[in-house]
Amino acid sequence: MRVYLAGPEVFLPDALEVAAAKKRVCAAHGLEGVFPLDPPPAAAPADRPYWMRIYLGNEAHIRSCGALIANLTPFRGPSADAGTVYELGFMRALGRPVAGYSNLAADFLDRTRAFLGGQARPRADGGWEDADAMGLEDFGLADNLMIDGGIAAAGGVFERQDSPGDRWRDLAAFERCCAWIARR
Amino acid sequence: MRVYLAGPEVFLPDALEVAAAKKRVCAAHGLEGVFPLDPPPAAAPADRPYWMRIYLGNEAHIRSCGALIANLTPFRGPSADAGTVYELGFMRALGRPVAGYSNLAADFLDRTRAFLGGQARPRADGGWEDADAMGLEDFGLADNLMIDGGIAAAGGVFERQDSPGDRWRDLAAFERCCAWIARR
Repeated sequence: MRVYLAGPEVFLPDALEVAAAKKRVCAAHGLEGVFPLDPPPAAAPADRPYWMRIYLGNEAHIRSCGALIANLTPFRGPSADAGTVYELGFMRALGRPVAGYSNLAADFLDRTRAFLGGQARPRADGGWEDADAMGLEDFGLADNLMIDGGIAAAGGVFERQDSPGDRWRDLAAFERCCAWIARR
Repeated sequence: MRVYLAGPEVFLPDALEVAAAKKRVCAAHGLEGVFPLDPPPAAAPADRPYWMRIYLGNEAHIRSCGALIANLTPFRGPSADAGTVYELGFMRALGRPVAGYSNLAADFLDRTRAFLGGQARPRADGGWEDADAMGLEDFGLADNLMIDGGIAAAGGVFERQDSPGDRWRDLAAFERCCAWIARR
């Protein structure tokens, strides 16, 4: 089973070392990890811009995989990395198993309130809103309900923990996702 | 043609009024706008949690539509709303036309640098990184390359402007997306 390893680790200076570590965890569970920076199954046309060749390569990777594990640790804001979220939705629409993990355990509401700081204000109905009067989701979830919902609809797991170490390299929650896919 | 209207307007206090305004623009182009808060084509099982019924309703809405227009105006951070991005990836995987718009015109790099402030620092190779040494995308795009790439791969348009008015209610860029879908 090929498993697409979605996540913002592609932005790390040691992305390939992190990729190798994730692939070792996959292999220990009988899975083949596929990292976004791996050579794609089919090369994108050379006349497309560099960023578009990356996009097409990642899309081809996802289509070639039987499952996806998303690193949904919050990235530059209350939610997960946008590219990772896009890929999660893409794989869910293909009808294949998806799982996710976050190395920050706090609920989405608490993280969004912390992000907004003094700009978060209570609503008369007991909820919260931002400076534009836009409401804050309050469902006890890890992120926007489309993310938690997509994983739940696929029957997947969303593993959350407060990583005691380096939140971009701690693979304990990731490994629980691998174990779930291997058990299916 | 039914068109799914993805975007964070669902969080506005006057979401239904904004939905009605978007539907009027759609109708002027011969399109039927479908808003996330509309009654879904099939009711989700009553024993599922409220948030999961919303998720399942939105998924059913998307599957029932022939195209999607995403409001990708940055939301609580440098990127678009996570739920909207998930839905964009979902519809792209279904192989149907997608378009997007943003009422902030600045490039993703500039917005991310502004978001990070003093935590953004130059790399020796000329690029930029954050406090975790994670690189910043610098492709002259509107958002993460998976978002711009998905729209481009679908042959769609990504309309960007600095809205002179209310960025959550200005529909000029949205209307250009409607016109593109109507022309196809």
